[in-house]
Amino acid sequence: MNDSYLNFVNSPFGARLARSLGLPKPEVLRRYRADQPEFDGLIAIGAGREPHLLDALANLVAGIGMTSVAHESAGLWVPLAHRHGLMTGRFEAAESGSHGKLTALLFDASGIEDSSQLEPLHGFFHDTLRSLGKCGRIIVLGRPPEACATPRQWTAQRALEGLTRSLGKEARRGITANLVYVEQGAETGIEATLRFFLSPRSAYVSGQVVRIGARAGTGTMPAFDWHQPLAGRRAVVTGAARGIGASIASVLAAEGAHVIGIDIPSAREALDATMRQLNGTALAFDIAAPEAPAQIAAALDEQGVDIVVHNAGITKDKTIAKMTDAAWQSVIDINLSAQERIDDALLAAGILRDGGRIIGVSSISGIAGNLGQTNYAASKAGVIGRVQSMAPHLRARGITINAVAPGFIETQMTAKIPLTIREAGRRMNSMSQGGQPVDVAQTIAWLAHPGSAGVSGQIVRVCGQSLIGA
Amino acid sequence: MNDSYLNFVNSPFGARLARSLGLPKPEVLRRYRADQPEFDGLIAIGAGREPHLLDALANLVAGIGMTSVAHESAGLWVPLAHRHGLMTGRFEAAESGSHGKLTALLFDASGIEDSSQLEPLHGFFHDTLRSLGKCGRIIVLGRPPEACATPRQWTAQRALEGLTRSLGKEARRGITANLVYVEQGAETGIEATLRFFLSPRSAYVSGQVVRIGARAGTGTMPAFDWHQPLAGRRAVVTGAARGIGASIASVLAAEGAHVIGIDIPSAREALDATMRQLNGTALAFDIAAPEAPAQIAAALDEQGVDIVVHNAGITKDKTIAKMTDAAWQSVIDINLSAQERIDDALLAAGILRDGGRIIGVSSISGIAGNLGQTNYAASKAGVIGRVQSMAPHLRARGITINAVAPGFIETQMTAKIPLTIREAGRRMNSMSQGGQPVDVAQTIAWLAHPGSAGVSGQIVRVCGQSLIGA
Repeated sequence: MNDSYLNFVNSPFGARLARSLGLPKPEVLRRYRADQPEFDGLIAIGAGREPHLLDALANLVAGIGMTSVAHESAGLWVPLAHRHGLMTGRFEAAESGSHGKLTALLFDASGIEDSSQLEPLHGFFHDTLRSLGKCGRIIVLGRPPEACATPRQWTAQRALEGLTRSLGKEARRGITANLVYVEQGAETGIEATLRFFLSPRSAYVSGQVVRIGARAGTGTMPAFDWHQPLAGRRAVVTGAARGIGASIASVLAAEGAHVIGIDIPSAREALDATMRQLNGTALAFDIAAPEAPAQIAAALDEQGVDIVVHNAGITKDKTIAKMTDAAWQSVIDINLSAQERIDDALLAAGILRDGGRIIGVSSISGIAGNLGQTNYAASKAGVIGRVQSMAPHLRARGITINAVAPGFIETQMTAKIPLTIREAGRRMNSMSQGGQPVDVAQTIAWLAHPGSAGVSGQIVRVCGQSLIGA
Repeated sequence: MNDSYLNFVNSPFGARLARSLGLPKPEVLRRYRADQPEFDGLIAIGAGREPHLLDALANLVAGIGMTSVAHESAGLWVPLAHRHGLMTGRFEAAESGSHGKLTALLFDASGIEDSSQLEPLHGFFHDTLRSLGKCGRIIVLGRPPEACATPRQWTAQRALEGLTRSLGKEARRGITANLVYVEQGAETGIEATLRFFLSPRSAYVSGQVVRIGARAGTGTMPAFDWHQPLAGRRAVVTGAARGIGASIASVLAAEGAHVIGIDIPSAREALDATMRQLNGTALAFDIAAPEAPAQIAAALDEQGVDIVVHNAGITKDKTIAKMTDAAWQSVIDINLSAQERIDDALLAAGILRDGGRIIGVSSISGIAGNLGQTNYAASKAGVIGRVQSMAPHLRARGITINAVAPGFIETQMTAKIPLTIREAGRRMNSMSQGGQPVDVAQTIAWLAHPGSAGVSGQIVRVCGQSLIGA
């Protein structure tokens, strides 16, 4: 729960000592606070040939009230920005000090059709990266490779991934770098996602690749308020009594949702306390019980539900030679099969409403495998399969399904890991620190957002760009 | 080039010292040698419900002359094996010592349709993993999730990935663990791939997921000899003068191919020497030159070519703020754009014959990004895009395109990395050591194999299951 090294090296004495000993100095990440402006400072805009997304970006920049400067690669930005009534200027590398520190770098690579056209990316980041301040944001925008018209275009767009992930590893200082692929026709659906990646809400999300497609479903986009986007929505969160689950419940409630927290009967007291604070509803069910799907469906039937977050999960780590059959089965059942049963019950009865959101919790172990976690990793890899397989099925109803995959998150569970292993897990990422439960919760809130209707079938790691992967 | 720690801890004194100090003891990996049997020992067979691949496996086991035992999960194996004229028995956990050490564990999970049916995987590996000897092989067989009929089946099949990668991380002792997804109808095309994963040729390939589809093209499978599968084939290898390229040339020649080595004019002497040894043909071209594609096409025009290996590549590492435009451009051009130009020339003129093979070289940096390698990582991510985008285009002509993605390979290049960084790179994988150029070369030879016609559009890491990924 407490990274004392992070605190120490950010104290005046600790900072001096760390500097003189050459120790890593993780940045104190800037996180979202309701009493601080979510967006401020100066964005530098860059672009490759024939950028298709500048208009959507101008709308976004106007909406969040930031100021922009155009890099020489994005000459089109200045007249466009003026049309949108934006204050804007030109980025001059030589006098970048005069702009003060930049808070975000946005590059529109959507028009790049050949590997020989990638050079402006180098020019832009070469000129601007040093002017990006602590906890700054790098966002590269492209077209989904698999939807490109030619192999040359697919190849060039796919190359952006190597660049963006490298930028994340280079930038350090709490800076995140992410790649957003926007499908043709989905330009107007980028705002919720870009707000998330620009905001301190995404403090621990870096090195990720997200695709925005055409909006699922047929209805019009429901109206919402950017300050209370989940107002009027009902959200179920499993495992909500404590830890990450309680944090998810709390963030969804802060965004306006009515939260229905589910946890096992033995956690009833903690669950009741958490739900009382949030004016939520507590349901004490063991999700692994055969009757649970029907019970949950019955409890939600009258008012329905808009958001389902499958957060409940357990670990029973042992090497497979020492793992009992019961340990294998219970982890697979609670972390994976129970979700399938509950979703199926809610979907079949129409209790999860059209336009709804399902969000699973996978894990880096599910992506990369892990020693002693054959059961856990299988269950969390299964969650990825669940997301990918269900997304096309749910599209017609406007329901999205996605998962987050946390890396090292500071919780009571990770606090029990022996010190040296804990330190390795904490530092082996671009932020040189573990994440907080709220980082997972904020990522889930973005996926639950009414504006995220074009984001489905995706796995987003909340890992500070952990080195570990597959 | 030389991992002196590996040598030391495998000496009698070093082994004692490492044991008493609790130091890691990487296994000396068993690699393919023409003077040693490629396949020997005892395979244990396991299976989930309704396994679809046992017949194909029985053919394989008969073909390579191994002996098998059936785990209790694979009761169907014994009568089937007898029909194929195989010596076979039953695996008994209690008396597993009586079987001596197993050399491979094969599990057919192809019939699993629901996460609740995953238990036999636990049972099988729980019982058998401890009986698997040094440098043993674990292969899990399933169905490609994205081709499954139901979301439940997709989910269960996708779960196999987390299990297999975890097994690779647990097993250690030079054991590899890989997952092979076999498309319905592709059962008869599994032999070349399973031979590779069972063989010492795949010593440094672990934690990988490979898909075998229906064979590309329309013609009948060309006849070949398992001992000289590339006999009569012509293979172009770029960057063939030294290092990994020379090793690729040498392995392809040993498999019977006539190798045409390409390298830059300044490496002419080394190239000539390498090609002389292999009775190959040396072509001194700078692949980055605008006229190179036409020149290469002209040189190959008369006899055509069957295999193209794009091995040539350069690094010019710098953080992006310090990277010159020339350093960016030359890396993108040589590592990526030149390959596109050469392939397009060979394909347009029909010089690369139907049924051919294109093999690119990506990198873990192209998957995960790397500090100081924005240019290199972009180029190597582009190679992935190239493979994925071209595979469907080339299918009708029976041409496959794939890439290998090396991790830490012991070369003159990695020998120049400072010791502590080199040690970290070497040890951060399931083999606790770097790979050898021959490991990359053998993987390419498998992809070039006439029996690999169902393997296309894939990226296979040769990294000893490096921790690093995305």
